[in-house]
Amino acid sequence: MGRIVQKFGGSSVADAESIKRVARRIARTRADGHEIIIVISAMGDTTDELMDLALKVSPRPQSRELDMLLTTGERQSAALLAMALADLGVDAVSYTGSQAGILTTPTHGNARIIDITPGRVVRSLDEGSVVIVAGFQGVAQSTKDVTTLGRGASDTTAVALAAALGADHCEIYTDVDGVYTADPRIVPSARRIAKIGYGEMMELAAAGAKVLHLRCVEYARREKVRVHVRSSFSDKPGTWVVPQEELTKEATMEEAIITGVAQDRGDAKITIIGVPDQVGEAAAIFQAISEAGINIDMIVQNVSRLSDVSTDISFTLPMDDGQRALEALEAIRSQIGFKEILYDDQIGKISIVGVGMRSHPGVTATFFKALAEQDVNLQMISTSEIRISVVVGSDDVDRAGRAAHAAVGLDADDPALVYAGPGR
Amino acid sequence: MGRIVQKFGGSSVADAESIKRVARRIARTRADGHEIIIVISAMGDTTDELMDLALKVSPRPQSRELDMLLTTGERQSAALLAMALADLGVDAVSYTGSQAGILTTPTHGNARIIDITPGRVVRSLDEGSVVIVAGFQGVAQSTKDVTTLGRGASDTTAVALAAALGADHCEIYTDVDGVYTADPRIVPSARRIAKIGYGEMMELAAAGAKVLHLRCVEYARREKVRVHVRSSFSDKPGTWVVPQEELTKEATMEEAIITGVAQDRGDAKITIIGVPDQVGEAAAIFQAISEAGINIDMIVQNVSRLSDVSTDISFTLPMDDGQRALEALEAIRSQIGFKEILYDDQIGKISIVGVGMRSHPGVTATFFKALAEQDVNLQMISTSEIRISVVVGSDDVDRAGRAAHAAVGLDADDPALVYAGPGR
Repeated sequence: MGRIVQKFGGSSVADAESIKRVARRIARTRADGHEIIIVISAMGDTTDELMDLALKVSPRPQSRELDMLLTTGERQSAALLAMALADLGVDAVSYTGSQAGILTTPTHGNARIIDITPGRVVRSLDEGSVVIVAGFQGVAQSTKDVTTLGRGASDTTAVALAAALGADHCEIYTDVDGVYTADPRIVPSARRIAKIGYGEMMELAAAGAKVLHLRCVEYARREKVRVHVRSSFSDKPGTWVVPQEELTKEATMEEAIITGVAQDRGDAKITIIGVPDQVGEAAAIFQAISEAGINIDMIVQNVSRLSDVSTDISFTLPMDDGQRALEALEAIRSQIGFKEILYDDQIGKISIVGVGMRSHPGVTATFFKALAEQDVNLQMISTSEIRISVVVGSDDVDRAGRAAHAAVGLDADDPALVYAGPGR
Repeated sequence: MGRIVQKFGGSSVADAESIKRVARRIARTRADGHEIIIVISAMGDTTDELMDLALKVSPRPQSRELDMLLTTGERQSAALLAMALADLGVDAVSYTGSQAGILTTPTHGNARIIDITPGRVVRSLDEGSVVIVAGFQGVAQSTKDVTTLGRGASDTTAVALAAALGADHCEIYTDVDGVYTADPRIVPSARRIAKIGYGEMMELAAAGAKVLHLRCVEYARREKVRVHVRSSFSDKPGTWVVPQEELTKEATMEEAIITGVAQDRGDAKITIIGVPDQVGEAAAIFQAISEAGINIDMIVQNVSRLSDVSTDISFTLPMDDGQRALEALEAIRSQIGFKEILYDDQIGKISIVGVGMRSHPGVTATFFKALAEQDVNLQMISTSEIRISVVVGSDDVDRAGRAAHAAVGLDADDPALVYAGPGR
């Protein structure tokens, strides 16, 4: 039998009944003889409720103390799950992230995992216990303070533990039954993907797919951890996220293989009008943005205007960073000499993710034609080997997504999984 | 300036507003230049709510996991209080019992403090921070597991920390403004005691007074920590609990000094009828009770019956242990050969606590006369140098308490603090 890491999210353990149900599921897996490590999130909306409580006490909660507060949520669900398993006759023990040896950077609220020293976990596994680790948290290697790993980080914890413990694979249990070719709530004809490579999954996540966090997939790819994303409410197989080499696709030789369509409304667009077209100007702009700690997604620089030898630069960034970016740009306005800054947060990004995209212009043409037929204006375009993204108005995102999904052959009633380009 | 430990109970920090109010109070004390260590309980009814949640998941929650769960309550309030202080410009840091170096026995749910190694606390104090320690918890020295110290143990933690840190004194903030000569809700004429010795306070606590836990006073006496019990809702002085030598009383020479009247409804009475009057029989009975881990309070053995050379033995014990005691006795019934076991939980205990009681039979006489005038039947009697206790029916407890309080001169409208025995 093997060693498996299983992660259960907040909605899977929303109340006492759900915890008992999850315990029964784990007991069945244990009965098959597997060694099991569980990573668990806080129950339901606990983290949000604790955050609200903190804000009632302080408008800007001190970050070390906020981590001390928020981490109690996962600790509670871990202890309760251990109790439920004990009732079923399954030896189980709960550990905080710190007790499990998850060492992190000291950045409260957004710490990174530096290393995992799972001695206590291994000893408990050897003694025959199911080990339950509180997700979302670790301990700062330098200060010994408790840290939280940023939102959505329980998935990353699970994958990191799987790597550190040499687990056979890592199961991420969630409230959907796998990764779909598009968000099924917006594109009803979306289909579940049986198997997907790390790279494509990363692109889907970066493009807006919410089912698996980008960080988590990056970690899985780096450590070669096989991840199974599945529903906690059924026994059906979900989506396996695996090394690209495992996928039997001939994409790079003959066709483009489209994996899915993703959309994202979380970005805003900044356009800088009239940047003097001189060497170093664009670099200075992005230096200032980078020093403000802002990650940029797409960049488009238009052709220089002959009239005043200037150009316009547009880029997209997370909406939450919009204010900081504008401040950073204002600070260098006189130095650069640009005319104006435009800010637009009523945008959305639609991406087609697959393999062999750029070498098959037919895909791009099909995609753009579908958007044109929907009367959707393309504001920005960006392409790579495994992703084509466009920025459109946020009102257009949903119907453009559905149209693109159908046009590239992903709809469920289309038997062909492989897109056949023009001329076939 | 000095070093002070302050403990705040659950009702003092019931919600966000209360936490902010406590923070303002601490900030004022800090502004006077004192080094401050806070011990804090969980907010309001949090501990009970977590216990209810555990029982929803498991009818008999595994004890190690229950401690992992329950300790999140104090951790939350400690972190929130630190945030509130930070907002007021007061540097503050929260620590769990484990982080504060509170080392305990491994008995989950009822651990004892073995030692305190407060290195981290001292370092933070030296750096100018107010240190907030989560109460009710520590870490088992042998297993490194988180432990809880039994109900009411935040007071004990505060006193233990005061001892370990060489604090000038320990302030226990509660929802009453000190220790009274009787429970003011039952005896409206009760008065606040300005200063009381450790021994008398221990007797009052053992006799049923709820304001300070017996364990806490034992610890204070052992380590000579001066304790100030006061209200968190006002600035009035409360009751100082101090070494007996500090009290200027001539009690042991001339008069009995009555400190207070206490009552307790938490006990049950077991009477074993027809115990063969032979050497070793009573010892065997109490051996069995002791092996069941039950603490006995009062014991009365009646005069032997000539008819069958047997005797009856009565003793009182906590109601919660009643079932276990009956089982332990049934198990030795044939070995001992007693006739019958009677169980009565409709009893209460009233105690007069003071100094020099036994050598002044006038006090006992006055007490018993007051009870007789109330038509109260005395079921059991027990006396010591600083306490006289009687067991009565639970329906009689309140009015008996009021009558005794008045009879021994404790009522507020009686100017004399000293009881003058007969003949004076």
